[in-house]
Amino acid sequence: MEFLVRTENRLPADTPGQTRDQLRKAERERAMELRADGVLKRLWRVPGRNATIGLYEAEDPAALHDALTSLPMWPWMDVTVEPLATHPQER
Amino acid sequence: MEFLVRTENRLPADTPGQTRDQLRKAERERAMELRADGVLKRLWRVPGRNATIGLYEAEDPAALHDALTSLPMWPWMDVTVEPLATHPQER
Amino acid sequence: MEFLVRTENRLPADTPGQTRDQLRKAERERAMELRADGVLKRLWRVPGRNATIGLYEAEDPAALHDALTSLPMWPWMDVTVEPLATHPQER
Amino acid sequence: MEFLVRTENRLPADTPGQTRDQLRKAERERAMELRADGVLKRLWRVPGRNATIGLYEAEDPAALHDALTSLPMWPWMDVTVEPLATHPQER
Amino acid sequence: MEFLVRTENRLPADTPGQTRDQLRKAERERAMELRADGVLKRLWRVPGRNATIGLYEAEDPAALHDALTSLPMWPWMDVTVEPLATHPQER
Amino acid sequence: MEFLVRTENRLPADTPGQTRDQLRKAERERAMELRADGVLKRLWRVPGRNATIGLYEAEDPAALHDALTSLPMWPWMDVTVEPLATHPQER
Amino acid sequence: MEFLVRTENRLPADTPGQTRDQLRKAERERAMELRADGVLKRLWRVPGRNATIGLYEAEDPAALHDALTSLPMWPWMDVTVEPLATHPQER
Amino acid sequence: MEFLVRTENRLPADTPGQTRDQLRKAERERAMELRADGVLKRLWRVPGRNATIGLYEAEDPAALHDALTSLPMWPWMDVTVEPLATHPQER
Amino acid sequence: MEFLVRTENRLPADTPGQTRDQLRKAERERAMELRADGVLKRLWRVPGRNATIGLYEAEDPAALHDALTSLPMWPWMDVTVEPLATHPQER
Amino acid sequence: MEFLVRTENRLPADTPGQTRDQLRKAERERAMELRADGVLKRLWRVPGRNATIGLYEAEDPAALHDALTSLPMWPWMDVTVEPLATHPQER
Repeated sequence: MEFLVRTENRLPADTPGQTRDQLRKAERERAMELRADGVLKRLWRVPGRNATIGLYEAEDPAALHDALTSLPMWPWMDVTVEPLATHPQER
Repeated sequence: MEFLVRTENRLPADTPGQTRDQLRKAERERAMELRADGVLKRLWRVPGRNATIGLYEAEDPAALHDALTSLPMWPWMDVTVEPLATHPQER
Repeated sequence: MEFLVRTENRLPADTPGQTRDQLRKAERERAMELRADGVLKRLWRVPGRNATIGLYEAEDPAALHDALTSLPMWPWMDVTVEPLATHPQER
Repeated sequence: MEFLVRTENRLPADTPGQTRDQLRKAERERAMELRADGVLKRLWRVPGRNATIGLYEAEDPAALHDALTSLPMWPWMDVTVEPLATHPQER
Repeated sequence: MEFLVRTENRLPADTPGQTRDQLRKAERERAMELRADGVLKRLWRVPGRNATIGLYEAEDPAALHDALTSLPMWPWMDVTVEPLATHPQER
Repeated sequence: MEFLVRTENRLPADTPGQTRDQLRKAERERAMELRADGVLKRLWRVPGRNATIGLYEAEDPAALHDALTSLPMWPWMDVTVEPLATHPQER
Repeated sequence: MEFLVRTENRLPADTPGQTRDQLRKAERERAMELRADGVLKRLWRVPGRNATIGLYEAEDPAALHDALTSLPMWPWMDVTVEPLATHPQER
Repeated sequence: MEFLVRTENRLPADTPGQTRDQLRKAERERAMELRADGVLKRLWRVPGRNATIGLYEAEDPAALHDALTSLPMWPWMDVTVEPLATHPQER
Repeated sequence: MEFLVRTENRLPADTPGQTRDQLRKAERERAMELRADGVLKRLWRVPGRNATIGLYEAEDPAALHDALTSLPMWPWMDVTVEPLATHPQER
Repeated sequence: MEFLVRTENRLPADTPGQTRDQLRKAERERAMELRADGVLKRLWRVPGRNATIGLYEAEDPAALHDALTSLPMWPWMDVTVEPLATHPQER
């Protein structure tokens, strides 16, 4: 099933550049694995913000939770999840 | 998977008593079928309101949508759905 | 550019069935045209609600506005639009 | 009587791992005691968040308050409680 | 147990005066019975509004729900209920 | 005149236990004085939260302000005040 | 004591002009009486809206309530009241 | 001085086409006069909605109020106004 | 033109008493100058909060901004401004 | 295409004056470049706040995002973006 996932990144503005870069690199690598696994299907930036909107697919909410918490930035992210129902037009 | 479902019933206050009674009776019958099918697992009233909180189980959000829209009161209900992830304490 | 579009359908609950059916049929036909034109890329139902979340693509917000207002149900729809920025992971 | 209880865990992201682990272990132990006592009846995770939704049973709101504040994580939790009324369908 | 109960009266402004008067009289009579039964302990007006804040006591949320829905104005009232826990200063 | 007063206690979770205990003790003492003076008439806990709902009586809003700011915890409290109008049923 | 009072006028847009004019005239007359009585001290329009912000003085919230409900437009007005405390700079 | 003005048009969906067309035509004519007078400086549509965002200039809020209420659609419009302060970069 | 100005003072609770006293004294002095200049016309406390509601008069929003930012507490204040339009009753 | 952009500057109140001045100077310089490039078309201050409302033009949301994040103050800014559709009156 598919989910719409919003993230707001709350990493403090005074985080050292090196820490920030390491987190970003690790985040990107983990995101790429989730793409390869078919869990992360699309990802957009919310313009002007350190925030994303993503389209995810997972077996159930618990599997989605495990995928999202596996992201290295997760401890600093405010995440909201909406379940999506297949529309009859696309069945 | 399980969902937390809130309903607010917006049936107008000036609905004739007979219409209201028929809807309530049909609503109860359909709810009982959903219970028998294991879709509706628990149901509470929000005290003071014509509103409920329910615990539902369905294969996916589309199946839940079909169950909820099968309720005769659905056209007058404002419904919100939250996905629930199994907690590790209960696995 | 892509947009995330939410619609809440406010068609009154006491709308005659025939009017409702005609509107639904015309809505579906116009939606199919927007799909064929590459404007409507994905559409989901918000479970439990007469509401949708859609992924649209249009040249600019004015073109998106024209597409959305061409839907027969538009006069009864509460629509909100969010612009989406391409994420570097997908460039 | 039953209550729907939401918790958002605000433990700072920079809490040392050891402190975090100790708190989690103690939290789990106390939660298990509340389950054994019939106070905590069901617990779910809100997918993507460090948050839970729980179904509790207690004699009255003061007893519920005592149970919730007995959780070691309570000082960092934002908790909201809703009273639930038995639905006639379940009487 | 005690509850804080807010009501907003949504009776339409164009309700005939006679209907309004009958409802008000019946409302007052029922409220007086609830006072006599110890269910309605205090009642205030929200200044400037057709709204009240009340302190109620009932055995549980279901009993409170029955008391509130027994008020003749209930079909037009938007009611919200908060559970109150006895404070240690008053034990 | 009477006021409904809500307080949310924002004392940081990492406040030393001794400081916290001293504040609580002083808070309780001052609250008892306000009770003796007829200013604090009732006090409840919001279940699950470090928060209260109180019924106060004071000559006017300025006198209420002075009473509330005399509480030792006041610098850490988020306070909201609602004026209450005597209901005709209680005149 | 003084109060800040906001009003939003919800008189339906399709109210006949004559009814509207009569209500406006009566409203103005009653407002002028409240000014003469020292109850209505200042009145502003919220630009662009059929809404006002007013500074009122009354003995207590019940007296303010009686003044506001004496306005002929009151049944159509959404009113919110905030108590104001004298600032030490003005004592 | 300049103001940012948002309008949401609440004209009912079942308004006859002729009435709607007359209102739109009169609205456009009056808007053009406000442009010619330098009151309406820019106007945008909120994509997907029957709503606008406008940049207005007027001597003061009362003059802006008069301009906005002179629009034929005003009785059906929900209008919000924000004052804008010249930024030092543009002085 | 007149403005309604709300301020919430966010000075941290752990600010040293001396710093706090100096800021308060300087704030009061600057406020008195603004009163003498006819900019600050009325000031109230929001009961129970470290917050004020004020009636200001300034030539335009930029002049008001300069007045508000000249207050020594401004860096810690959350300020919201509403423009007020003269009501015809007061013209 | 045009965008309405709001910024709230969350730079901590205890930021050293020199850091603040350097950031402001660099912010102004970058803003002037964005003006020269035709990206930043208008900028206003929200009176009373460390906040702005701006009218931007960019090829698409991703280009706007790059422009906004190029501002030196961006890490401390809370930014919200609304897409604007050309109004037929201005075509």
